[in-house]
Amino acid sequence: MFSQTVEYALRAMVHLAEAAPAPRTNREISAATRVPLGYLAKVMQSLARAGLVVSQRGIGGGFGLTRPPQEITIYDVVQAVDPLKRITRCPLGLPAHSERLCTLHRRLDEAIAMVERSFRETSLADLTAKEGTFPGCDGPGVGTLTRFRPGC
Amino acid sequence: MFSQTVEYALRAMVHLAEAAPAPRTNREISAATRVPLGYLAKVMQSLARAGLVVSQRGIGGGFGLTRPPQEITIYDVVQAVDPLKRITRCPLGLPAHSERLCTLHRRLDEAIAMVERSFRETSLADLTAKEGTFPGCDGPGVGTLTRFRPGC
Repeated sequence: MFSQTVEYALRAMVHLAEAAPAPRTNREISAATRVPLGYLAKVMQSLARAGLVVSQRGIGGGFGLTRPPQEITIYDVVQAVDPLKRITRCPLGLPAHSERLCTLHRRLDEAIAMVERSFRETSLADLTAKEGTFPGCDGPGVGTLTRFRPGC
Repeated sequence: MFSQTVEYALRAMVHLAEAAPAPRTNREISAATRVPLGYLAKVMQSLARAGLVVSQRGIGGGFGLTRPPQEITIYDVVQAVDPLKRITRCPLGLPAHSERLCTLHRRLDEAIAMVERSFRETSLADLTAKEGTFPGCDGPGVGTLTRFRPGC
């Protein structure tokens, strides 16, 4: 239901949220999240265009979040790379449905609205806050950064 | 969030539900639902393979539903053409997450589960029952078959 691009963008953003305020290079993000480097570079461009991340050049540089993790939602990330599109007009272009959708399209739009609501209510901080509750391969208390560590 | 294939399959199935028990040819379904004929033919093949529709040959033939509209859900149609896939394993293949997903993937799976639940609870009959409530171009009481009539 969600594209590969959405999956990759969310992995990258959760990784940056866990690293924050330290920046991470594309190479570091790719290694940690198992997102292919070329694909990741395009995803990061989209996230930068949407103003969610910023690139810092030079030694110790890389991508960092532009806002604290609690101020960026799943919805923000999804809309930056592969937006949820609500059904506001009849997809068939029927004039009779221009003011009120048929039952089918209202039902589909309700499903999209449910997902939108859930995503708007979930921040990156919500995805990273439970350190140790779901430990990575190094055991409890190591922190959620281990979550995406490859090879564990 | 839902593919073109899902949209087209649902239009076709709602149309067949409204026509039931009369069959409809691909040409008739295409005209009524504005789904391109070639695309529709492939969608109908998938629906037939899933056992949701059956083709009747000869004069007066065409596609018909194999079960009453109240016994076919949106979920059945979606699973026949472009299935919702729950997240049951860590998409990164992390052994540490094999028994319990990380928060990100649990949250994404919850969203898919919400949609699945909604689609399982909605039958084709639910999408066609409100005749006249959302009238087509010919005005109230004409029936929901007008819903997808082209050119109105």
